[in-house]
Amino acid sequence: MIYELHYWPGIQGRGEFIRLAFEEAGVEYVDVAPMNGYEEAERPPFAPPFLKAGRRLIGQTPNILLFLGPRLGLAPRDAAGRTWTHQLQLTLGDFIDEIHDLHHPLGPTLYYEDQKAEARKRAREFLKSRLPKYLGYFERVLARNAARDGWMVGETLTYVDLTLAQVVAGLRYAFPRSAQSALEDCPRIVRLHDRVFARPRIKRYVKSKRRLAFNNDDLFRRYPELGD
Amino acid sequence: MIYELHYWPGIQGRGEFIRLAFEEAGVEYVDVAPMNGYEEAERPPFAPPFLKAGRRLIGQTPNILLFLGPRLGLAPRDAAGRTWTHQLQLTLGDFIDEIHDLHHPLGPTLYYEDQKAEARKRAREFLKSRLPKYLGYFERVLARNAARDGWMVGETLTYVDLTLAQVVAGLRYAFPRSAQSALEDCPRIVRLHDRVFARPRIKRYVKSKRRLAFNNDDLFRRYPELGD
Repeated sequence: MIYELHYWPGIQGRGEFIRLAFEEAGVEYVDVAPMNGYEEAERPPFAPPFLKAGRRLIGQTPNILLFLGPRLGLAPRDAAGRTWTHQLQLTLGDFIDEIHDLHHPLGPTLYYEDQKAEARKRAREFLKSRLPKYLGYFERVLARNAARDGWMVGETLTYVDLTLAQVVAGLRYAFPRSAQSALEDCPRIVRLHDRVFARPRIKRYVKSKRRLAFNNDDLFRRYPELGD
Repeated sequence: MIYELHYWPGIQGRGEFIRLAFEEAGVEYVDVAPMNGYEEAERPPFAPPFLKAGRRLIGQTPNILLFLGPRLGLAPRDAAGRTWTHQLQLTLGDFIDEIHDLHHPLGPTLYYEDQKAEARKRAREFLKSRLPKYLGYFERVLARNAARDGWMVGETLTYVDLTLAQVVAGLRYAFPRSAQSALEDCPRIVRLHDRVFARPRIKRYVKSKRRLAFNNDDLFRRYPELGD
């Protein structure tokens, strides 16, 4: 069985957190546009990304990673560790939602161009309060991990490390100066990011055509009017 | 061991989805304000609600329900069923986030009074597009469940049924006329709501002092200026 990742073509988006897991594990997968009629399945996903694993369709990014984690060797072995890893992924999901909502504060049904003024206000609040709050939290999680190996959970890399590294890369694309300045207080996060993107399979992936470039139809967007 | 639910006093909020699970199961729990210093734990939750189960702290509402589901007899027995139940809970979580964001479109750091105009625009879009989209999705899920017993997953009630019923109650409080009108196309959801709130333990809970009233410091808010 070859895993199929169904997601919108042309963007990294939420699919990227799943792609990074497959790439790091060196497990074969195909990356396709959402299949026709997925809404008609007996257990339909609400929206892409979703995973096709044999006859099963599995939706919701953190749920997909919860499913894949043990299968790809990217989750702890103990139940308590898995629950904690998933909890961190959900908190990263909240962070990612807030980053998305910067350019869509009035909701996903209107274009960015129709909510620019509101986006400016929301981005100001985000950069002032929420960005340092979330980064401070993950820095603390890294500092408290008794294993002291630089990963979020236990002694080895898990899928949440891949997600956090990708969020750092996205923030640096969207807000180069603000991200730089906020990350000055987060040496552990910066180190984690650097180690993830230095891993041989991730390096090969990022250089390949499979890795799409950041762009402004995506989750992380570079709109200088929202902040630098 | 008695479970402790740590959450903000005076509101139903996200804690309510967990309270309903304990109440339906008839399992003892205590409902307390967040303990001092929880941020200092080795595995700190980002925010309430969180569960204290023995020495463990477990955060993120869907993660808490994923943990409690099998322990309270409110999750399917098979792994695929549990993954599907969790996926539905995460989609309900997205729906709940969008309902929250109606009164906080510029983010959680500003008061509602400072974002009223933006809230009006966002609520208009939500009632027009997102509310029928989400309700239509859950109605379809109910229609497709091959067990045909009126629950979301399999033949028996699970924690996602409790959450969906509570969302219906909240929508009726916040937007009495719009909810009524949107629910006219969703007979299965209405029936699920009625069956949940007719269950003996849930009935007893709703009549007790433990059930807090809906109010405008909460997730679901009645602001007539946002829509009726």
